[in-house]
Amino acid sequence: MKIVVIGGTGTIGRAIVEEMQPRHDIVVVGQSRGDRQVDITDAASVQALFDHVGRFDALIAATGNLHLGPVAETTAEQFNLGLQDKLLGQIRVALAVQHHLNDGGSITLTSGIVAEEPIRQGSNATTVNAAVEGFVRAAAIELARGLRINAVSPTLVTESASVYGPFFPGFESVPVAKVALAYRRSVEGAQTGRVYRIW
Amino acid sequence: MKIVVIGGTGTIGRAIVEEMQPRHDIVVVGQSRGDRQVDITDAASVQALFDHVGRFDALIAATGNLHLGPVAETTAEQFNLGLQDKLLGQIRVALAVQHHLNDGGSITLTSGIVAEEPIRQGSNATTVNAAVEGFVRAAAIELARGLRINAVSPTLVTESASVYGPFFPGFESVPVAKVALAYRRSVEGAQTGRVYRIW
Ligand SMILES: NC(=O)c1ccc[n+]([C@@H]2O[C@H](COP(=O)([O-])OP(=O)(O)OC[C@H]3O[C@@H](n4cnc5c(N)ncnc54)[C@H](OP(=O)(O)O)[C@@H]3O)[C@@H](O)[C@H]2O)c1
Ligand SMILES: NC(=O)c1ccc[n+]([C@@H]2O[C@H](COP(=O)([O-])OP(=O)(O)OC[C@H]3O[C@@H](n4cnc5c(N)ncnc54)[C@H](OP(=O)(O)O)[C@@H]3O)[C@@H](O)[C@H]2O)c1
Repeated sequence: MKIVVIGGTGTIGRAIVEEMQPRHDIVVVGQSRGDRQVDITDAASVQALFDHVGRFDALIAATGNLHLGPVAETTAEQFNLGLQDKLLGQIRVALAVQHHLNDGGSITLTSGIVAEEPIRQGSNATTVNAAVEGFVRAAAIELARGLRINAVSPTLVTESASVYGPFFPGFESVPVAKVALAYRRSVEGAQTGRVYRIW
Repeated sequence: MKIVVIGGTGTIGRAIVEEMQPRHDIVVVGQSRGDRQVDITDAASVQALFDHVGRFDALIAATGNLHLGPVAETTAEQFNLGLQDKLLGQIRVALAVQHHLNDGGSITLTSGIVAEEPIRQGSNATTVNAAVEGFVRAAAIELARGLRINAVSPTLVTESASVYGPFFPGFESVPVAKVALAYRRSVEGAQTGRVYRIW
């Protein structure tokens, strides 16, 4: 399969590429690094990526920024950052890519454990991740030509614990290689509308 | 209690006002009708409403527009309409009102059955409603001064069936008066972080 991994230069993305590379033709996409660059918050940039790549079989998005901060101090403008980036960014990619995938192709997006397990300073993260999962549930029943869509919801990744650990007291982390397997399950499997919880 | 009902002039809002009026002091807020007007998509308008009302005990939001349309034809710009209106609009109200409510006050937002039961043309609705419920889960663990937050998730309302019925084949509708009871349960009860499913 020809697979485009947006966020393929990140912590989770690199592990996905490592997991998939032996069996597939991978296009690694980052914002600043990778084989190609894209900005998921910019419609023209997303369109240009897919026009360049041509038709392919699977799109993986393992990317997206959120706002972290106490609910008492959060403004609607700050809240909108996560809506525009991790949420609408991934949805923009999914809406655009449905017209570029081969029949039976797949879309795999990324949510996160905070969708279901709220943490302090995580109101934007819970909202955005729950919304990504909602989009996947709904798009799955409408996509044409046998296209599938799933989400992977990782808990704290062990390789990211030095950065995000303090937000997740008492959460057991998982090795990023285990998270990468879920993206393989989504791409090489046959399910749709699923959220793969890796925790 | 002094209660502000945004969307209090709508189908669900009117039933909420009818249910609550006998026991409480209600401020009915619409976009164009009601005792006061507000536009939940406009930060200055929301701030002006709360500055005018002063301190109060419960905020109910039964409002918000969504994009309905086939996923194959939906653009990111159309998708963003629902994110900015029903989702960020209600969250803007919740973030602002936390600083205007009396200790132990409550916030009640509105999602909808489509959060969990996707329908054709409903990808934006599922996403937005799931996101509203996520926000409620997360904000509930962080709100100060005993403030509470819940959501009501109605199925198709019988009084709206002539308009929205065609989107909900085989869904049993519920009378709006039954939906209104859930808002009373949220305001007069003691729970927080709950989604009251009325279906
Ligand atoms: N790490 C965790 O513990 C964890 C746990 C649960 C969920 N998640 C979620 O998993 C996803 C990836 O996390 P990560 O830790 O792997 O992130 P990361 O290491 O920071 O990598 C981010 C990736 O996204 C790319 N990127 C950044 N902004 C972009 C944009 N506007 N358009 C396109 N690509 C962009 C980056 O490209 P460059 O290489 O050019 O910078 C990089 O490839 C995020 O949605 C995160 O919320 C992570
Ligand atoms: N009806 C159903 O079957 C059903 C089922 C599930 C969920 N819901 C949800 O319940 C909520 C209310 O639905 P409804 O059917 O009662 O709606 P509705 O009858 O159309 O009433 C909408 C209400 O919101 C107000 N409004 C509109 N735009 C606004 C804005 N930008 N800022 C502030 N207020 C605004 C309107 O004010 P004006 O009076 O000035 O126009 C009116 O009070 C929506 O979130 C809807 O998605 C409805």
